[in-house]
Amino acid sequence: MFSLTVRDQIMVAHSFTGEVFGPAQRLHGATFIVDATFHRAELDADNIVVDIGLATRELTEVLGELNYRNLDEVPEFAGINTSTEFLAKVVADRLADRVHAGSLGEGARGLSEIAVTLRESHVAWAGYRRAL
Amino acid sequence: MFSLTVRDQIMVAHSFTGEVFGPAQRLHGATFIVDATFHRAELDADNIVVDIGLATRELTEVLGELNYRNLDEVPEFAGINTSTEFLAKVVADRLADRVHAGSLGEGARGLSEIAVTLRESHVAWAGYRRAL
Amino acid sequence: MFSLTVRDQIMVAHSFTGEVFGPAQRLHGATFIVDATFHRAELDADNIVVDIGLATRELTEVLGELNYRNLDEVPEFAGINTSTEFLAKVVADRLADRVHAGSLGEGARGLSEIAVTLRESHVAWAGYRRAL
Amino acid sequence: MFSLTVRDQIMVAHSFTGEVFGPAQRLHGATFIVDATFHRAELDADNIVVDIGLATRELTEVLGELNYRNLDEVPEFAGINTSTEFLAKVVADRLADRVHAGSLGEGARGLSEIAVTLRESHVAWAGYRRAL
Amino acid sequence: MFSLTVRDQIMVAHSFTGEVFGPAQRLHGATFIVDATFHRAELDADNIVVDIGLATRELTEVLGELNYRNLDEVPEFAGINTSTEFLAKVVADRLADRVHAGSLGEGARGLSEIAVTLRESHVAWAGYRRAL
Amino acid sequence: MFSLTVRDQIMVAHSFTGEVFGPAQRLHGATFIVDATFHRAELDADNIVVDIGLATRELTEVLGELNYRNLDEVPEFAGINTSTEFLAKVVADRLADRVHAGSLGEGARGLSEIAVTLRESHVAWAGYRRAL
Repeated sequence: MFSLTVRDQIMVAHSFTGEVFGPAQRLHGATFIVDATFHRAELDADNIVVDIGLATRELTEVLGELNYRNLDEVPEFAGINTSTEFLAKVVADRLADRVHAGSLGEGARGLSEIAVTLRESHVAWAGYRRAL
Repeated sequence: MFSLTVRDQIMVAHSFTGEVFGPAQRLHGATFIVDATFHRAELDADNIVVDIGLATRELTEVLGELNYRNLDEVPEFAGINTSTEFLAKVVADRLADRVHAGSLGEGARGLSEIAVTLRESHVAWAGYRRAL
Repeated sequence: MFSLTVRDQIMVAHSFTGEVFGPAQRLHGATFIVDATFHRAELDADNIVVDIGLATRELTEVLGELNYRNLDEVPEFAGINTSTEFLAKVVADRLADRVHAGSLGEGARGLSEIAVTLRESHVAWAGYRRAL
Repeated sequence: MFSLTVRDQIMVAHSFTGEVFGPAQRLHGATFIVDATFHRAELDADNIVVDIGLATRELTEVLGELNYRNLDEVPEFAGINTSTEFLAKVVADRLADRVHAGSLGEGARGLSEIAVTLRESHVAWAGYRRAL
Repeated sequence: MFSLTVRDQIMVAHSFTGEVFGPAQRLHGATFIVDATFHRAELDADNIVVDIGLATRELTEVLGELNYRNLDEVPEFAGINTSTEFLAKVVADRLADRVHAGSLGEGARGLSEIAVTLRESHVAWAGYRRAL
Repeated sequence: MFSLTVRDQIMVAHSFTGEVFGPAQRLHGATFIVDATFHRAELDADNIVVDIGLATRELTEVLGELNYRNLDEVPEFAGINTSTEFLAKVVADRLADRVHAGSLGEGARGLSEIAVTLRESHVAWAGYRRAL
């Protein structure tokens, strides 16, 4: 099984609902360093997993929808705790949609799985992995 | 599949038995940077994998039993090579016990797997992964 | 010249005023990984730069005043762009005050300089260095 | 499941064929930081996954066949795009051959899987994982 | 003294002349992760060291002149060993020229010093620091 | 001013004397990731700061005197707290001696300064810097 990973980042504000979150119930923020990993069983005709240029561009575009925002005010996240693990799924699902739409190139249709990790600090990170 | 990872560390002394270990047969030491990763298929009611505060506290407590010690003198490790990979299992098993005992919260009962990595340097690390 | 560095972090929300900041004029957030470095010409009687336990505790306390907050609503930062470089100075100055107040121990009075670096992502960081 | 990882690196020149590679069609180069991970279900008689000294030596030898070379001039890669993901497979396969040949010790015959990651920069890496 | 650092990278081929370089006399390559640090005594009117957007853009442009190239074929480097430390000076000097030309904004004229570090691997890096 | 840095590591056991050290008064251990930085104003005839091969070899040899040892039993450290900052000086001084003895090559006689950093974990490190 082959994989290719590209890294980018976002800087967002948000707050959480629920006693479990302690002081993170207050409006605060985070830099999420985002790693998107694409998996496939065999390489494509160019001997790669996916075009790294397209993968980087699409990751940046997906992140651009979230970057420099207060996630508490994003309508589709209303009433939702935008936890690191939840956001990993949001990014993975949106990348999956773009793979299916052909935005990562025709060769990307051979991808089998996508995994996204969001690093919120040097001591904590979360991830989500799904089939394509 | 979702995951959440928290990081902490220990500083221990130990020695190994067996020619394969070369100079590491002498009493020496290591900083182990420890990453504990918790896996589950679906997020809990708070939209998280596990309470990161509890996960960090429990990891620190598990590591506290080993930290600043000469592992050669810890009775339960008598006659055992406390290799990096062995210690990864010790930490994973003790965290699993705490998950089962409810120390990581009721929501943590939905966890499916735990993985622990111990980084002994910038060029070597070991891990252990098990079901919960 | 000797140095000792300890690392901790904060997660804050803020926004900037000024066209130069582009989309960062919107309310967003950041994780700042904070490195505080203490310098001195000669080691103290314990053969150290400063008590690492006290240095870590004081750094965490200084950061605790900022952590999990919207800096736009902190009265003392009213009308101020809380840039990474500005926050580095805030942390350094507050640590310097604590050194002078004796909170880092009597031995810390021999410190000559303090430097603080705030890493806002894997591709950008800022710092401030001052005499004590 | 246990794992052990060792890290080394190579510095190579190469070029790619295919429009998808853009400016990387020109002769350029890369440092690949190489992580080789060995997996097995149970530890061996020494309580380890594999002799870390042998694992490091064999990884260095496998990489030595590629290091400080222009891969465009290596006969066995003629007409092949030596992409990061392809090179990960080359390294993994050659390490697997050495495991089977006994170069990593008799205990290494209990290894079940090998994974190799090549980091080409701070924002991109690729990997290959296979059974033994 | 304040500082701001931005990071980018290049992937180049080159070879060295001189017995001291051993196998690096052969055509090989490197990824250089490049950190450019800007220093100044006081922050500008926006409370920053320099516009991070302009700093990043200019660094990327300076690096673009070198990226995906065989440095042995770059006319201005003819007969020169393009060592990591030499390239650090090239990047620093070109950034300094751009500061003086106003490309980093008018505020950048208050910069006092620039430092550039090129990381060629996880175990080696070189730098150059100069006044502005 | 130019610099070149090489990295290696040691794994040692030791204990500290003095209440300030808390649980670190017990015999424990550490991995120290060691960065040795060499400074000079102008590059040598090969366009480098120092022969990176010799620098790496000499660093490894200096560290080899400490590696896989219990520093409490090293005669020259009797009665001394082998703190991270103290060990940074030990390594820097021994490297300086080797520079003066010519072990890093004749060109190394142009070095002006040496700095050594010992990273004891992901959250703490210490350094020592001296003239040559």
